[in-house]
Amino acid sequence: MTRGNFNKCLQSATSWTRSNTANGLQRQQSLLEQAGRARPIAIIRQQTAAASNIPYDNARRQQSAQALKRRAVITAVVVAAATLTFATRREVHAEAPPKEPDKGERLIRLSEIHEHGRNAEKFWVFKGDRVYDITDWVPNHPGGEVILRAAGGDIGVYWDIFTIHKKQEVYDVLEQYFIGRLDPQDLVDGKPPSEHVDDPFSTDPERDKALIVRSSRPMNAETPASALQAYLTPVNTFYVRNHLWVPDLGNEDGYRLTVEMIDGEEKQYSMKDLREKFKQHTITATLQCSGNRRAHMTAGSRQTNGLQWDVGAIGTAEWTGVRLRDVLIDAGLDVVNLDEDVQHAQFAGAEAYGASIPVDKAIDPRGDVLLAFEMNGQPLPRDHGFPLRVLVPGHVAARSVKWVNKITMSGEESTSQWQRRDYKCFGPNEGSNPDWDSARAIQEMPVQSAITNVRQVPQDRLNNSKLAQVYGLEEDAIILEGYAFSGGGREIVRVDISADDGRTWRQAQLIENDEKGAKAWSWKQWRIALPRREAMRYFCVKAIDEAYNTQPESFEAHYNFRGNLASGWHRVPVPKSTD
Amino acid sequence: MTRGNFNKCLQSATSWTRSNTANGLQRQQSLLEQAGRARPIAIIRQQTAAASNIPYDNARRQQSAQALKRRAVITAVVVAAATLTFATRREVHAEAPPKEPDKGERLIRLSEIHEHGRNAEKFWVFKGDRVYDITDWVPNHPGGEVILRAAGGDIGVYWDIFTIHKKQEVYDVLEQYFIGRLDPQDLVDGKPPSEHVDDPFSTDPERDKALIVRSSRPMNAETPASALQAYLTPVNTFYVRNHLWVPDLGNEDGYRLTVEMIDGEEKQYSMKDLREKFKQHTITATLQCSGNRRAHMTAGSRQTNGLQWDVGAIGTAEWTGVRLRDVLIDAGLDVVNLDEDVQHAQFAGAEAYGASIPVDKAIDPRGDVLLAFEMNGQPLPRDHGFPLRVLVPGHVAARSVKWVNKITMSGEESTSQWQRRDYKCFGPNEGSNPDWDSARAIQEMPVQSAITNVRQVPQDRLNNSKLAQVYGLEEDAIILEGYAFSGGGREIVRVDISADDGRTWRQAQLIENDEKGAKAWSWKQWRIALPRREAMRYFCVKAIDEAYNTQPESFEAHYNFRGNLASGWHRVPVPKSTD
Repeated sequence: MTRGNFNKCLQSATSWTRSNTANGLQRQQSLLEQAGRARPIAIIRQQTAAASNIPYDNARRQQSAQALKRRAVITAVVVAAATLTFATRREVHAEAPPKEPDKGERLIRLSEIHEHGRNAEKFWVFKGDRVYDITDWVPNHPGGEVILRAAGGDIGVYWDIFTIHKKQEVYDVLEQYFIGRLDPQDLVDGKPPSEHVDDPFSTDPERDKALIVRSSRPMNAETPASALQAYLTPVNTFYVRNHLWVPDLGNEDGYRLTVEMIDGEEKQYSMKDLREKFKQHTITATLQCSGNRRAHMTAGSRQTNGLQWDVGAIGTAEWTGVRLRDVLIDAGLDVVNLDEDVQHAQFAGAEAYGASIPVDKAIDPRGDVLLAFEMNGQPLPRDHGFPLRVLVPGHVAARSVKWVNKITMSGEESTSQWQRRDYKCFGPNEGSNPDWDSARAIQEMPVQSAITNVRQVPQDRLNNSKLAQVYGLEEDAIILEGYAFSGGGREIVRVDISADDGRTWRQAQLIENDEKGAKAWSWKQWRIALPRREAMRYFCVKAIDEAYNTQPESFEAHYNFRGNLASGWHRVPVPKSTD
Repeated sequence: MTRGNFNKCLQSATSWTRSNTANGLQRQQSLLEQAGRARPIAIIRQQTAAASNIPYDNARRQQSAQALKRRAVITAVVVAAATLTFATRREVHAEAPPKEPDKGERLIRLSEIHEHGRNAEKFWVFKGDRVYDITDWVPNHPGGEVILRAAGGDIGVYWDIFTIHKKQEVYDVLEQYFIGRLDPQDLVDGKPPSEHVDDPFSTDPERDKALIVRSSRPMNAETPASALQAYLTPVNTFYVRNHLWVPDLGNEDGYRLTVEMIDGEEKQYSMKDLREKFKQHTITATLQCSGNRRAHMTAGSRQTNGLQWDVGAIGTAEWTGVRLRDVLIDAGLDVVNLDEDVQHAQFAGAEAYGASIPVDKAIDPRGDVLLAFEMNGQPLPRDHGFPLRVLVPGHVAARSVKWVNKITMSGEESTSQWQRRDYKCFGPNEGSNPDWDSARAIQEMPVQSAITNVRQVPQDRLNNSKLAQVYGLEEDAIILEGYAFSGGGREIVRVDISADDGRTWRQAQLIENDEKGAKAWSWKQWRIALPRREAMRYFCVKAIDEAYNTQPESFEAHYNFRGNLASGWHRVPVPKSTD
């Protein structure tokens, strides 16, 4: 296989699966389908068998024997539903069963494995104490070239991040490349010592100590409330949402963006090309994680899966870059008579993340989708996508792919788990293994608001408070501040505040700012001063956007097990009097 | 004044006020401002005085004397706030005080008044027993040429419809044109007999008896639940929302649409021009009155102003016409480099209604705004705008102006009360005299849903129900049906149904239909079958659109005194068992 063909295979680093032909020439079969249905499993088996020179029938017999063995364990299975049940059970019993050592097995030293890294001719990895030569698998790897990050070392640490690998069919694939075992003289307590295990996060950047860390590997940290008061969130305390490690891309000179049309035609752009060839645009836009306020849903309803963010998985910045629309036109997309097969713009990041947006948003002249290289007037920090990220204003931040190095026009959404699974909402009654395809991937976000500051102002210090004067207060006061935001560029038109847990309401002052862009892409900050004596137990906030959508009162009815898009009224206890 | 100038004045039949210069040459002063502030009142006084040849100072003195008299009645008024209070009180004490007959007054016969109709040289009207020659006022009339409908007869019946006239400054204007009293020999019980009083609704069309009439003059009637089951609502039972009478325009041959650019340039189109010059488009779109489900808000919270609609102020049709965008381009609008002064497209209807939409929607190639002449494949019925209406999909129906005969590109919204007042929402705490300008005119609508049918299916008749089979029911069942809809072309992605007043939920089946248009402009109908034994007290429905906006649980928190956009969960009592 030539390097050219090899690259064709790796067109999207985050596909769940791929064919080894170019986009548009053959439909990809997704692993999503493979997990749930019989036919696609047979297809990937064929590829696997071909790649490893094991005849397909042998591979199938091997698979069937394993399946029969497992079936014996579970006797209550309804035979008529065996195919589907089989696929489900494979996920449950995912860890490979320990095998008895085979005396004829080759023993391999760690130093020899390290020699088969990403620059070698043969790619070796280990998992536990078993060693594999995955050279022939690499072109077929659904996740693309990112697998080479593990070459010459432990693949297990990556599977701990890409947990989608933890199922039987993936273990089965790996076993077909088995070549031997780690030499016991290299093991400590039966495991390779930590200095021989790769740390994917070792080159992550330093972060500001003020960030509130929710997970460190990968880094997920929210903006402290104090930094949510400014219209533009400071770059160093802007919330960080990483799904994987931060790619270490050096300076921008070697960076290339590949744009692929639906017929497979590709065009490459250096950062210099982007800067010089296209008009630059600056917009102000809020990015919000779909999990913002997830902790409130957990507290207000029940347990949710995912990082338990408070109000700080959101921030606003001024973004500068070039319009995706302009680049797509330059790369050959006819936006006037759009080929109706083109439905989505898929984005792949250098670290292996992927997502997509509908093509209508990608090419909308008023959609303001950018390929951004500056944030608040500075080059993007590494945590926020240096040197280049997508910026999809009005959509969930998960579509604003960082470190973007590949854009693919396609008839289907990105096949990544972040497009097909994680960023969706289901009904409150739907459990943790729903029909994933039945729900729409989150794109535009619903209306949202939060209280970020509660401040008491005693009567004798009212002179210092302009706001108390605006509201005509001459008694002990409480000042509340916060943000409100809605998706799709729908402007916030009103923010209602209650000081008595939702019985009565007043309107907060909306703060005008220097918004840039075709629509209302950024949050509205608000503030209000209330008489201290009116405050009972809880303050509540709810916002209304220009389509007059408003927020649900509580969390139970929009509960979803992933805890996405938690937008019930934000309730904050009234502080005890400072008297 | 030449007829040409006269027509210039009447550019928009529904402006609250107008200057006598063309659009863009001089800013209009709106009566909205005049009601609330001192300066604009002086301006209209100047016009009035000039028109009636009464020196301005005299007019001002007359006004001041009246004001002083009224001030004496209310002694508790704070003097410092007198200007504003004055304007407010003028509305409260709006009816003109009865005057003692003056022996020198001229007595006028009804027959003589009838001779001064819209085709005469002088225009006379009466109100009560007082007669006015309004010839000089017509060019200054804020509402435009529609005032001529009253010429030769009773102007009071029109003021009962255009209630905005019922305030002191309008009575003051009228009094300046007083010429005499009705001759007592023409009066019956002190009033003109009914055959001498014009009935603006006498030429309204016949309606289907199945419509549920909420008011008959003007006609407002909702679609019966049985007609809400079909994807396309039958034309004869499609809800009717008329603000005024139905203009009787004969056939379409004489109809002209005038399109005016911001520089005052006008272009006229006959129906033949529209049909032959532009490509025709067909879309399916739901129209919904902002008052749909208002009765639920009243029941769930407290009294609201306006027609108490149930679930039937909504309907879906297939609309055929030409794109507004195409016509605007033909009339001279540069949509590629849009003049930034152009912010709104104002629409005026032949009966005097008016409204506007943002220009971005008007020219959006994917916005699908039509000038429609067919509804479900037939010419528009008179009640729905024959021969031509605007169709603004995804927006509140109040912007889809019927009988449209004038389109004006403008820097501001339509100055009609339906743009500047009636179709807005305020906070639950804001009373019936809010700061009108503080709220956004309703355009796109929030997510909405309703239950339109509840049907019991006993176990022994389940064979007849495919739906019960789909849901695997083998016991007494209840089948629910209804609709869900969201504004802005945001598709409904899920409908949740509760059989226990919101404690637990299931997903309804969404019915796919042959939708036409660039976005999801039409409702999704849904159905579900539930086990009878699970049904407790109330069924609830809530819908979720593609931006994952959802409906509020109840009504109190989104209550607004106008009862607009009532979208709390629709609750329907569980019927008693048929056993």
